[in-house]
Amino acid sequence: MHVSAILTVIGRDRPGLTQALADVVAETGGNWGDSQLARLGGHYVGSVLVELPAGGLPALEQALRCLPDDLTVTLVEVTPEPHPPEGSRFSVSLVGQDRQGILREVTSVLAEMGVNIESLETGLEHEAWTGQKLFRADVQIFVPASLPLEVVADALEHISGEIMVDINLSEALR
Amino acid sequence: MHVSAILTVIGRDRPGLTQALADVVAETGGNWGDSQLARLGGHYVGSVLVELPAGGLPALEQALRCLPDDLTVTLVEVTPEPHPPEGSRFSVSLVGQDRQGILREVTSVLAEMGVNIESLETGLEHEAWTGQKLFRADVQIFVPASLPLEVVADALEHISGEIMVDINLSEALR
Repeated sequence: MHVSAILTVIGRDRPGLTQALADVVAETGGNWGDSQLARLGGHYVGSVLVELPAGGLPALEQALRCLPDDLTVTLVEVTPEPHPPEGSRFSVSLVGQDRQGILREVTSVLAEMGVNIESLETGLEHEAWTGQKLFRADVQIFVPASLPLEVVADALEHISGEIMVDINLSEALR
Repeated sequence: MHVSAILTVIGRDRPGLTQALADVVAETGGNWGDSQLARLGGHYVGSVLVELPAGGLPALEQALRCLPDDLTVTLVEVTPEPHPPEGSRFSVSLVGQDRQGILREVTSVLAEMGVNIESLETGLEHEAWTGQKLFRADVQIFVPASLPLEVVADALEHISGEIMVDINLSEALR
């Protein structure tokens, strides 16, 4: 029997940081699975799915506490997933002039319909001609089988006009 | 004046989770910048770079505490980055039969040379023919100008033979 846990980390980017984490995981008998770590605002930030021998969580927790103080680490045990609902995946891409609350308004529309966001990547970029700041988001959504896609498309089109951003809905690549 | 902070989140995947976060950020006057959130082991995990009005950090901290208990949230203030060192970026891709400690051994070699890992993505997959579990890692590294690339290439080739994984070093795409 194994237990799984998700480890998140925020630390000042520097050589040896990944190694320090990998050391701790290996020393406590853990196996490093899916992970995604990247620079964000000059820090090194990300998450790792770790598989541990049964009862191995406290040892990993303890060992993580010995990492340097400027490393913020969180450990959460992964509990078995409830049965997956039926439905389909779609991609939503969004781009518009950056201002507070864009993401909030779009995600609020999705949540009201019971649409789940499975992944989200956002970024700010400067428009070449005007120098204006643009907010860009790529969203993978899961639409439950009970919800017609037209309803989602209409809702997104409506909010797109209201908050003046371009929103595109397409079939998910994966 | 603004302050920046990195917010990490681990929560059970469900509709409305991104909206709950976006609500809190918008309500405390924050702006949602670069972010990356995705499913990991049935959870929704990721990080967001948030820009806040000066002195706005305690308000965001307070508001985050009101989120549901099954959401683990961390907030870390971003301090100005020290001057960036000179050097070049390269990509390292690695694939081999999964076993404990692969990543530790490779990252330890990189850290010893003073090579910085800027991003890391790992995953486990099953080999089509044998059904064996394969560990795959894509790493973006920063090699300081004082370190010849040949030294890095030789060290990676050496460890590759020792731990029996394929390692490829190439120019970074970005």
